[in-house]
Amino acid sequence: MISDFTLSLPQWAIDEHARLPSHLHTIEERMAAVIRFSRLNFENGTGGPFAAGVFERDSGKLVVIGVNRVVLSNCSSAHAEVMALSLAQQALGTYDLGGAGMPVYQFVVNWRPCAMCYGATLWSGVRSLVIAGSGPELESITGFDEGPIHPQWDEELAKRGVELTNNVLHEEALAVYRDFAASGKLVYNGRGGDSA
Amino acid sequence: MISDFTLSLPQWAIDEHARLPSHLHTIEERMAAVIRFSRLNFENGTGGPFAAGVFERDSGKLVVIGVNRVVLSNCSSAHAEVMALSLAQQALGTYDLGGAGMPVYQFVVNWRPCAMCYGATLWSGVRSLVIAGSGPELESITGFDEGPIHPQWDEELAKRGVELTNNVLHEEALAVYRDFAASGKLVYNGRGGDSA
Repeated sequence: MISDFTLSLPQWAIDEHARLPSHLHTIEERMAAVIRFSRLNFENGTGGPFAAGVFERDSGKLVVIGVNRVVLSNCSSAHAEVMALSLAQQALGTYDLGGAGMPVYQFVVNWRPCAMCYGATLWSGVRSLVIAGSGPELESITGFDEGPIHPQWDEELAKRGVELTNNVLHEEALAVYRDFAASGKLVYNGRGGDSA
Repeated sequence: MISDFTLSLPQWAIDEHARLPSHLHTIEERMAAVIRFSRLNFENGTGGPFAAGVFERDSGKLVVIGVNRVVLSNCSSAHAEVMALSLAQQALGTYDLGGAGMPVYQFVVNWRPCAMCYGATLWSGVRSLVIAGSGPELESITGFDEGPIHPQWDEELAKRGVELTNNVLHEEALAVYRDFAASGKLVYNGRGGDSA
């Protein structure tokens, strides 16, 4: 039987990390890096147009930017958010990025996380979520299903101590989705058998 | 930088798998095996009292039973459901357990999945979800936060072609949660720093 699995970033992402500064001081710089990774991911054929970064909120120190790896990893949970949070937790040696004595960690994503990744965000311990948008544009442009997220998703974040910053580099994020849609690359929603 | 991470089942789970029959013919047998794993997981100190199994719905063939690995893996996404679905997808070589030409896969979990794992279930491609219950008992007995799941979570499953069977071995599942609570073992909700 298979008793373990490994998820990894593509080589281009490792190379790009090496070129990034150690600190990104504004949330716009952080989002720009995340959006750049989202574009490179689909252009390199290594996954969907999604990326997510973990930073120290106050210093801007970059921990890691993850990208979507669903198709090539054979893993429907390998969304950019799960990749980034898991890699950050491995790097920092803890399952709780909100543990006592730690800096405030900020999670920067190129759209509102899907139903699964919304939960993954809550459980990660991050105390700040920065997104490029939260409307239906992502689904309508790309065809990806984002799932049934809780109607009071923003209030539920606040209740759990996660501060939200929305609409950062909104148009820049949408441009990547439009280019992805125009590329004709795979939209990998589950249960493909339904339409086969 | 860290560019990959590996999640694995504990040795006792590998040993237990070797002792299970290749097929479990009723949903009660399947749930009993899952509940047994949930108990063994906390009793062995390898994670929270949660397990999840992937089976072929019609033949009862066992693919894999996963268990919660959050704390020892330093990974807040390593819930039993993500472990089981990811291992099943690795074993079957696909990110979509609902792909064309595949048998119907059934997902058996010892309670309603949390907000994150609810989404993970949708994205996995499974077409059947069997749970031991869906009420507040899990949270009230154990103290685990299950997160803000969509109020019409059951209708949303149906909309996406996932059939639901609820309250299978309900009391047996609750008995494990009660024994877990009595054990005084760690409840690992994120942002532990909040109360520190």
